[in-house]
Order: sequence, then structure tokens, then C-alpha cells
Amino acid sequence: MLYVVGLGLGDAKDITVKGLEAVRQADRVILEAYTSILTIGREALEEYYGKPVEVADRDAVEQGAAEMLEAAKSSDVAFLVVGDPFGATTHADLVLRARNEGVPVQVIHNASIMNAVACCGLQLYHFGETVSIPFWTETWKPDSFYEKIIKNKSRGLHTLCLLDIQVKEPTPESITKKVKQYLPPRFMSVAQASEQLLKIVEDDCEKVITEDNLIVGLARVGSDSQKIMAGSLKTMSVSDLGPPLHCLIVPGELHPLETEYVEQYLVK
Amino acid sequence: MLYVVGLGLGDAKDITVKGLEAVRQADRVILEAYTSILTIGREALEEYYGKPVEVADRDAVEQGAAEMLEAAKSSDVAFLVVGDPFGATTHADLVLRARNEGVPVQVIHNASIMNAVACCGLQLYHFGETVSIPFWTETWKPDSFYEKIIKNKSRGLHTLCLLDIQVKEPTPESITKKVKQYLPPRFMSVAQASEQLLKIVEDDCEKVITEDNLIVGLARVGSDSQKIMAGSLKTMSVSDLGPPLHCLIVPGELHPLETEYVEQYLVK
Repeated sequence: MLYVVGLGLGDAKDITVKGLEAVRQADRVILEAYTSILTIGREALEEYYGKPVEVADRDAVEQGAAEMLEAAKSSDVAFLVVGDPFGATTHADLVLRARNEGVPVQVIHNASIMNAVACCGLQLYHFGETVSIPFWTETWKPDSFYEKIIKNKSRGLHTLCLLDIQVKEPTPESITKKVKQYLPPRFMSVAQASEQLLKIVEDDCEKVITEDNLIVGLARVGSDSQKIMAGSLKTMSVSDLGPPLHCLIVPGELHPLETEYVEQYLVK
Repeated sequence: MLYVVGLGLGDAKDITVKGLEAVRQADRVILEAYTSILTIGREALEEYYGKPVEVADRDAVEQGAAEMLEAAKSSDVAFLVVGDPFGATTHADLVLRARNEGVPVQVIHNASIMNAVACCGLQLYHFGETVSIPFWTETWKPDSFYEKIIKNKSRGLHTLCLLDIQVKEPTPESITKKVKQYLPPRFMSVAQASEQLLKIVEDDCEKVITEDNLIVGLARVGSDSQKIMAGSLKTMSVSDLGPPLHCLIVPGELHPLETEYVEQYLVK
């Protein structure tokens, strides 16, 4: 059996009881570690589960999928995903492959940033399409997500912006080499994302969004050290919400309860 | 302390370890029972927790909030919500009241239909605004949700449709009386929702959606008896997905992986 277990968003105890039972009786436990992170590391999980946890990066998941599914035919494999199992396309793909190969699968759901983000008081019913904001480089500054934010806003809808994660990126020097060297992991902060947004907004003649637009920034949602801050785009571009993961929201129209809720996080 | 604990979507073991610890040490446990249901009842929860569980309907939550917050000032109260604590406006309101009154609050997240719905293979990133479909009566047939579905579809986005729940509705005869009598609880099925949608579609001259439009129906998401079925609107209007809760999706544009995933649920 392949158990695909959502770990939730905070620490080891955010797993569900059903998920923990699956992990405890599994023959092999694999942690997917490139689409998200918890506030704790592998060692803390190993201690809590009382068994070793293999960490799988993108290559290991994509290239090792066949071997993992083969193992799941004759033993119990628990594949751990931060948040909910269906948060990333790659996991849906894995479940589909398992089903196509006749491997029994059990999915154990958990909180994901896609629903937990409502902890800032903005209602899930008022969110439009979610976007991802990628790290810009000197030569590559994509801004297609901005159009989606504008479309949501024109309908009065909030936009959840997921912020880029780069783990195990090869250094530019080693990219064509056989033995890769890797850059340290990078996680985009609310400040960095706001700064990129500011640059886009400056070039937007229609001024649907300006530097005074309200932004809600969230860090480590669902953990004990969760931090929420709301302020103008300009203010948020110099904010410090601490360690990753961060995400931000560009609100649409605010209902009275939403306004009242968000006000507790407002900085000038 | 007021613990607001998400129970997830299936049975007693879908609670998180953190949530279960809060419940086990709480002085009082209250289950909110009018915005959603689990596949098990109060008795099963009481047995699992080893303590009594009070069931609170809408009146009890709204009128009893002051008393509950007062109790949480000097003891530990666990308020249990099916899905995630922030799935319904009323719970955000409760948390805000608690904070305003200086009652310490801990929110314990869990899976919600808003993220678990991706188990059908449609990616969360491709969803637009969520809508609710209410029960029609002889004289009241609201269809404002249809416009939102069309707007999502015109942007290629999927629409999650949450289906009406009516618990503790007074009978028409007793509505003006002091002692109310109540109708049996009703939960809208995928078939009923599809039937209402069919009626709207028949009157839509622009034919953005027709009776041949693909619909994905989901029942008891996250439980062992979860059922997913995909077919034309016409087919789904006579489908039977079993006991509640149901929800449905009006898909926008399908990406190849989404098509392949949904095909496993297709009925003709």
C-alpha cells in the first residue's frame, strides 16, 4: 500500500491520528522536501515517529517513483507531503501512476496553505485564482501573475500569492557538469515579493494597484510562531516576518468582518 | 483558553495529534453541528475522546458564544469544527470576539473541502471563486451563483460548488410560534444540484454551459467511503453518490493530467 500522508503546516504533531498510524506501521517513510517545508526538520520527525525518514528532493521523487511504487506493491510505503497531498501537481501525478499500476493508494488529507490562509480573516469564498510569484533574475522578470491578480481584483476577489521556493538549484557554473554543486536553499519573503510587485505596479499605467494598496503578509501559518502583518505594498516591501515559509494576499473588496479582522494586523 | 479545533472531513481519527491533545485535556468540548458533518456522529466522538461532547446548533453557537467565551477565560474549552476552523464566517467571528475580549485562542487547522476537493485530480491553482448552491423552493429559485460559474469558466477556471445543508429548519407551521417544530435535516445531493443547474442552463441563451457539460460530483471526501463520479450535467442529474455530504465541480479548461485523472471517474 502507498499511503500519501499530508503533514499539515506546523510541526510533527500537525499530522492526523490516521496519518500517524500509517507512518508508524509503514515499512518505509519518505518525506517529499521540495515543494514546501515544516518549521521542523527530518531529525525531529524521525524522533517523533521512532523510525528513519528518507528525504526525497525533486529528482528523487521523479526518478525514484518507479522504485517506490514497486516497493508499495509488496510493503507499506508512507510518502509524506507538507500540507495536503494534493497541493502540488506532482503528487496527483504520483497517485495516478500508482492507480494505473494497480498499487493500492490511501490518501490522508490535512490542512494546506490553500485553506489555512483564511486565518488572517479573509474568507475563502472571496478568493479568486491562486498565483505563484517566482524569483526574478537579472535577465528574467516574469509578471504574468499580475494580470491574474488584476482580474481577481476587478471581481472584488482576493488573490493568494504563493512565493517561490528554490531548493537544490544547481550553481550556474555546474549546470552543464556531471557533478552538480548546489546553491543554498532560498525561500521568497513577503518583503521580496512586495518589492517585485512594486516594480510591476510602477509600470502599470492603469494604476489598479498602487504602492498604497493593502497587502496581507503571512509567515509560518499554522505553527506556534505564525506571524501575520498587513500594510501598504510599500510598507510590506520593507517588512520582516522572520523565517520561511511566507505567502501574501492582495485583497479584493473587504467585507466589514474582514476589515475588522485584518485591522488587528495592520502596521503603518 | 479557547481551542478551535478542525476535525477534518472523515471520522474521529482525522483530527490532528495536536487537536486530540487539546480535546483530551479540555474541561469542556463543544461540537459545532450546522455548517458541516462528519461520517460519524457525536457518540463515536465521545467514545474516542473518552469524554462528553456538547452539540451546538446555530442558535447555541450564536446565543451561547458569550457564555462559552466567559468559560474559556478560566478553563479550557475545545470548540470542534468539521473541516478547518476558518471554513465558515461564523467561526472567524467567534475567534475575533475571543481576541477582543482578551480570551487566549489557539486555532488547530485541518483539511477542508476547499483543499481536499483536489483529490478528484483538478488542480487547486485552476479554481476560481467558490459558490454555494441553495435549495430551491416553489417560490424562491435564486441563481446568482450561475453568473460566478460562467465568469470562472470564461477564464478557464474550475468552480467548486458547495451544496446546501439545512439542519434545524423550523416547519412553516411553527415558524411564528414560540415552541418550534423542526424539519428533518436535509443535505443537497449532486443529483439535486445538477437538476437545478439544468433548469438554469435551459434558460441560458448564450449556452456557455449545456446539458452535455462535464460535471465532477464528490461525496464524503476524505472518508473511507469517498465517491467521485464525472459525467455530463444531464447524467449527473440522475446520479446516486450515496449519503451526504456532496459537492460538485463545474470544470473550466482541463490540462492533460487533469483530463487523465478525471477519466477514471467518468460514467456515460
